[in-house]
Amino acid sequence: MIAPVVAVDRQGPDPLHKQIYDGFRTAIVLGNLRPGQRVPSSRSLGEELKISRLPVLNAYGQLTAEGYFESRTGAGTFVSESLPESLTICKQTPPPAASISSGPRPIARRSLLLPEYQRPLWAGGWGAFSLHQPAFDHFPFPIWSGLLMRHSRSPRWGAIHNVDPLGSETFRQAICDYLRTARAVRCEPGQVMVVSGSQHALEISARVLLGKGSAIWMEEPGYWLARKVFSGAGCRMVPVPVDEEGLMVSAGIKRCPAARAVYVTPSHQYPLGATMSAARRMQLLNWAQSAGSWIIEDDYDSEYRFESAPISSLQGLDGNERVIYIGTFSKVLFPSLRLGYLVIPRDLVGHFSAVRSAMDIFPPYLYQEAITDFMREGHFARHIRKMRLLYGERRTALVDSLRERLGAKVKVHGAQAGMHLAITLPEGFSDLEVANRAAGKGLWLWPLSPSYLGKSPRQGLILGFGNTAVEEMPRAVSQLRAMLER
Amino acid sequence: MIAPVVAVDRQGPDPLHKQIYDGFRTAIVLGNLRPGQRVPSSRSLGEELKISRLPVLNAYGQLTAEGYFESRTGAGTFVSESLPESLTICKQTPPPAASISSGPRPIARRSLLLPEYQRPLWAGGWGAFSLHQPAFDHFPFPIWSGLLMRHSRSPRWGAIHNVDPLGSETFRQAICDYLRTARAVRCEPGQVMVVSGSQHALEISARVLLGKGSAIWMEEPGYWLARKVFSGAGCRMVPVPVDEEGLMVSAGIKRCPAARAVYVTPSHQYPLGATMSAARRMQLLNWAQSAGSWIIEDDYDSEYRFESAPISSLQGLDGNERVIYIGTFSKVLFPSLRLGYLVIPRDLVGHFSAVRSAMDIFPPYLYQEAITDFMREGHFARHIRKMRLLYGERRTALVDSLRERLGAKVKVHGAQAGMHLAITLPEGFSDLEVANRAAGKGLWLWPLSPSYLGKSPRQGLILGFGNTAVEEMPRAVSQLRAMLER
Repeated sequence: MIAPVVAVDRQGPDPLHKQIYDGFRTAIVLGNLRPGQRVPSSRSLGEELKISRLPVLNAYGQLTAEGYFESRTGAGTFVSESLPESLTICKQTPPPAASISSGPRPIARRSLLLPEYQRPLWAGGWGAFSLHQPAFDHFPFPIWSGLLMRHSRSPRWGAIHNVDPLGSETFRQAICDYLRTARAVRCEPGQVMVVSGSQHALEISARVLLGKGSAIWMEEPGYWLARKVFSGAGCRMVPVPVDEEGLMVSAGIKRCPAARAVYVTPSHQYPLGATMSAARRMQLLNWAQSAGSWIIEDDYDSEYRFESAPISSLQGLDGNERVIYIGTFSKVLFPSLRLGYLVIPRDLVGHFSAVRSAMDIFPPYLYQEAITDFMREGHFARHIRKMRLLYGERRTALVDSLRERLGAKVKVHGAQAGMHLAITLPEGFSDLEVANRAAGKGLWLWPLSPSYLGKSPRQGLILGFGNTAVEEMPRAVSQLRAMLER
Repeated sequence: MIAPVVAVDRQGPDPLHKQIYDGFRTAIVLGNLRPGQRVPSSRSLGEELKISRLPVLNAYGQLTAEGYFESRTGAGTFVSESLPESLTICKQTPPPAASISSGPRPIARRSLLLPEYQRPLWAGGWGAFSLHQPAFDHFPFPIWSGLLMRHSRSPRWGAIHNVDPLGSETFRQAICDYLRTARAVRCEPGQVMVVSGSQHALEISARVLLGKGSAIWMEEPGYWLARKVFSGAGCRMVPVPVDEEGLMVSAGIKRCPAARAVYVTPSHQYPLGATMSAARRMQLLNWAQSAGSWIIEDDYDSEYRFESAPISSLQGLDGNERVIYIGTFSKVLFPSLRLGYLVIPRDLVGHFSAVRSAMDIFPPYLYQEAITDFMREGHFARHIRKMRLLYGERRTALVDSLRERLGAKVKVHGAQAGMHLAITLPEGFSDLEVANRAAGKGLWLWPLSPSYLGKSPRQGLILGFGNTAVEEMPRAVSQLRAMLER
């Protein structure tokens, strides 16, 4: 049991038992010790405070007599469940945060660039259509937990001592092997940095590459969480429209030819789902080289293509090391793992490492060890293959249900890959209104319009299908239809 | 097995087998497929590419005939270990990073505030005197790994779905219970944010509170990793000297009365080890309230006091919510866990959450679940008690050995708490020179002088004793003496 902070001073004016009594009384009044909480035995507190047991016994006696403590036979001494009312009131009503006292409370100007955090209503829960949700119940948790066991019961000392800001060397080697083969990424382990997800990768990239006022092309519509990073960094975000071939590079060149960087999701454009064509990829790489710009390639959802073979990454097509490549384990494993990686142009590794080291020093060891084995022993490839089939079926079930139950009312976008698709709504609908209303009924629909930077966004919904079984799809789509009927 | 990216286009000018042949050849030439790497069977590649097996067989035959592939009976097909030399040369010598092509490669000005990452020589390994190393071999790994197993084999869905930027509610409740009791911190779970260590906590605090040019008091000497955060944020760091009572508050007031914040390590000042006196604590709190400033309290090493009872935190003495309280699990568990927490003034929770959410969204679930149980089931308190005894013994052994073998040559500082102490060296020694020389012999001594912001720092060494057994101490100190004799 944790001993409470009780200051005793042998040279103090008060006798020790009085000091102990006061210490406990104050802790209870301030709410540091709470009703029902156990306190140490008089013997162990005496040891802790390096004093004899007698004054402790004395103080405990008085605290019990006055109703602060109660002893339960065989169980020990506790703070009373029924404390004098005056105390309880004081404890239960701390002054509200708004009343925090006088005096200036200045915060940084750049922190005002981000609005105070508030979770949108429609992001409140999970279930059919929730975004970014893999099929948790198909993940091989027993295998996974066996690997965690292997590396936590008797850890490799080299792993537990590793403090490299890039992460574990063996893990980075496994990531390289995977990326070279599956994504044609050109990399060596010395360029790979293990981070806690793609958001962290974006944050580090922005810190190294972008300053206040730096212009960056953003896909329009695009990924709202990426926008948080760039707006928090004070960048000037230039919306560049997307079509069925992905980012419209010539529109970008027209609007802002000298942007410092571009943020792009070429495998499965978020949220509309286009795959960037080979021609656009070459055009983007050529522009970046001639403009001296950086390409931040967020290659999420590259694992799950349903119709065609995957297209190699932008990074692999680039001969000038202008691409910062970002990947995540959130889709293949699960998001609450918080693990992803960056592939960094070689001349920037020292800068990326400096920023990472200042930000959170290095990544935790255990997941790195476990995923290395998960990859090396074939579980990773096997799970991807299995999930590609599963998500393909769920996708088909959703598209069929939408056609059947909503027909011409909605248009489906981007169902060729990944774990979500988008639908656009007919004239007259407000997606925010639909999403908020649906959230009230426990149906989590993400509105499309907040994905737009510019005015007059399209109205639509982004529907996740990763964690919804084929047989549940018709019922879920009926619920969705009900939301669109009212 | 992961299938390589091979683009096939049924409408293309080349026949499929030629496209597959070209795809593999290019992947091998670029080094995306490496000698000895297994390739998928012709059947499974055909399935992956959604084409018949015939053109795949055809291409594999040609690649084998030309020496790119080799088949091993019963084991499958592999990229040849012995590739034509011209290829091998091309693959093994990528152009050096320095030769990366023409064109501007601009990075952010603020990223130049941090020098490119390079690990100091003396931080290169672990062993006697290494800093920040708990007694790994005394950590109850079997219990710990059992808890990880419990929460990874069949995870609680609420935990795996949690995306709160503050972290898991039950974990925050457990942290509150601990902090209220052990550190007299006044907090509710809604003010606690789970982060990946104290460095991450500092980074988030700096983002919210400090802008370019904001003045911040820094302990002199002080914690070099904290300096990285504040210099990366463009702050003006004001060195404020420390004495045996900790930070000399009046010196700070004289040098910079209107600083925006102060960074302080009151439990065990880093690196000299003083505990801040009650008088100085009150003086600091009064200054902060009258100047409208923030106190960033890094309460590391509060768990391990050897002589006296712990003193309650600054946060607990503060009636004006001006303290940002930072704690870590790195010392009680181990650093490569990457887990710590912030206690945030209530009016700032929305800003801290916004910054955290933009930075890396939310913390990973598994450790939070496991440590909650580790705390609730008493392992945490038990381990702290055990380690307090152990580190106390190691501390005494080190101090005794230093007296015996180095005598009046060195002065010992800050041995009353924590897992390290500092020694100052007599006139004429350069601690950097000693540390670099020792590193050459595999002895990891951290020099004191880099802990100073100002000129003419004291020369000394910071000696960790957490991970060195009592019986190893005399030999380690003899090694240290040898370093000081040359």
